[in-house]
Amino acid sequence: MKFPDSVYVQRVEKAQQLMGELGGLVFGPSAELAYLTGAWEDTHERFSGLVIPRAGDPVYVAPAVDAGNLSVPFPVQGWQDGENPYALVAHVLGHAGTFGVGSALEASHLLALQDELHGAAQLATPVLKELFMRKSPEEVAQLREAAHAIDSVFGQVRIEAGRTEAEVAAELHELILDSGHTEVDFVIVGSGPNGANPHHSFSDRVIQPDDVVVVDIGGTWGVGYHSDCTRTFSLGEPPAWLPVLVEAQELAVQAVRPGVTAALIDATARDHISAAGYGEYFIHRTGHGIGLSLHEEPFIMAGNELVLEPGMTFSVEPGIYLPGECGARIEDIVVVTEDGCERLNRSPRHG
Amino acid sequence: MKFPDSVYVQRVEKAQQLMGELGGLVFGPSAELAYLTGAWEDTHERFSGLVIPRAGDPVYVAPAVDAGNLSVPFPVQGWQDGENPYALVAHVLGHAGTFGVGSALEASHLLALQDELHGAAQLATPVLKELFMRKSPEEVAQLREAAHAIDSVFGQVRIEAGRTEAEVAAELHELILDSGHTEVDFVIVGSGPNGANPHHSFSDRVIQPDDVVVVDIGGTWGVGYHSDCTRTFSLGEPPAWLPVLVEAQELAVQAVRPGVTAALIDATARDHISAAGYGEYFIHRTGHGIGLSLHEEPFIMAGNELVLEPGMTFSVEPGIYLPGECGARIEDIVVVTEDGCERLNRSPRHG
Repeated sequence: MKFPDSVYVQRVEKAQQLMGELGGLVFGPSAELAYLTGAWEDTHERFSGLVIPRAGDPVYVAPAVDAGNLSVPFPVQGWQDGENPYALVAHVLGHAGTFGVGSALEASHLLALQDELHGAAQLATPVLKELFMRKSPEEVAQLREAAHAIDSVFGQVRIEAGRTEAEVAAELHELILDSGHTEVDFVIVGSGPNGANPHHSFSDRVIQPDDVVVVDIGGTWGVGYHSDCTRTFSLGEPPAWLPVLVEAQELAVQAVRPGVTAALIDATARDHISAAGYGEYFIHRTGHGIGLSLHEEPFIMAGNELVLEPGMTFSVEPGIYLPGECGARIEDIVVVTEDGCERLNRSPRHG
Repeated sequence: MKFPDSVYVQRVEKAQQLMGELGGLVFGPSAELAYLTGAWEDTHERFSGLVIPRAGDPVYVAPAVDAGNLSVPFPVQGWQDGENPYALVAHVLGHAGTFGVGSALEASHLLALQDELHGAAQLATPVLKELFMRKSPEEVAQLREAAHAIDSVFGQVRIEAGRTEAEVAAELHELILDSGHTEVDFVIVGSGPNGANPHHSFSDRVIQPDDVVVVDIGGTWGVGYHSDCTRTFSLGEPPAWLPVLVEAQELAVQAVRPGVTAALIDATARDHISAAGYGEYFIHRTGHGIGLSLHEEPFIMAGNELVLEPGMTFSVEPGIYLPGECGARIEDIVVVTEDGCERLNRSPRHG
């Protein structure tokens, strides 16, 4: 599934307007390439990608053996094994100077381009933030649909004592696909002490009657946008500190509006948790951007002075992790609006 | 599944011996990282990877939230969100100068490292070719097992008129997993005109009684090594030119020995096909290295003057593609021995 061709053509035109002093842009297979062209390609040792000169037509450079399989609204230039694709890129860009590259371009290609172009490279992502970070209404619609679908999964899954984490994970896997997602990106079921590890996946541990269980799930939707949502379930008496986390997440969501920094959102959640004495147990950033990548700019963390703008989409997901005991995390995807934000996930934030 | 820890420790020691003038080595998530550490990780916007100084202990640098999940025989140093992981890398390397990087390191990390280290970067792959390209007996054993497993798939699959490419592909998928592969890497079933596209996957086309069908399949085995084998099936009278391809592939395999160049193997296949008048229909390189990556050095192509050495493993896979009619390709994995080569695939090369 793709947007109409005109969407990609307009995005590339916009990239040309935004590139400023850069001598051109090069994107290899990545979510950024999919954003600009609609093409999802695997990375490959043969160079393939979109080359955008400062002016004039962009060219999609691809191995000749793949060129025929590509469907992109741009001229495709194939190269044969034995030819130098980087010379082709240099020809399209037309001159030396600092050029911008996508964040996922692999070293083998980037170093060859630096040699061929005799120029420095820099990341294109910050330069194109207006494109990549500020989602269009169509993109937000995709993320909203994905969020509603993942909400429906939380409405159906049975988190019960006696089941193993793996059994719950298998049910989640099936429910995510049943909800209309095209792919399952990840499933985390962290019961009891396993919940204290934010990147636990799932295990054969049997869920106990008094457990706190962290469930973090996400999938791919439609054109390639992602859902990502975390809920915390208390099977016995909820921990006394759980309201602190719930409040911290709510305060952080309420703080989201244009003009404030990413760091402020992080500080809002962190300060509330720290004030209650749990600061040392909140061991990760508060959130990450989401779109065609599961994790992208803007990162919601200390030190990120990026100013939020309408259309930015990211997670707000503080957590508290007590080693050896349990963990809790609550995560919603939000989109910055003209005067605040819209929370895309609506399912009960804990249970 | 992994090799014993000592294997990885010795590999990294060998990398230190080989790095020559380089000021250190940095590997992000990739087959190269798996080769050096046993860790298969997904690429991530948070830096993670092995940092090897010129002398002294290597350090595995990872986000703190992931550090606890890592099982590697090297010291792990975690970094918190908000910290600068590239400063950590610089600290381990201990000085500036040209540093080597893995071929899959992503631009976001490579550019940040170039900034932090004030040094030029170059690909580590050529410097470490003795490690990466010359497979140990244990590695060859893995590739041999994978090759035998994929051979068994060709012994069982039914390529018959009346079935669709997709039906055959589904059967192949199941057979590859049944044969002991842990994952299916790719399945190509190119019948009739679809076979003329080397990177066709499969379609709903119904295989016809007179079709030539190209089947190219591969999977992941054991520690993470790959199989990759192509056979061509003639359901009616084989094309008159098929023997040219069979001979070209056989001549190329027979030409493999230490001391000759990769380019010579390519030329051996290509010259035979060209002499018969089909040179313009052989539209790709003759082969690619294979190991923990499906495609790696040595690439068997014109211009690659790399001299073959014992332990190198690669595909020999010439093809002839007649647009609109059909295609044919025959592919075996070979390993260079002391005085020639061992062909790892033994199933009938065409049928």
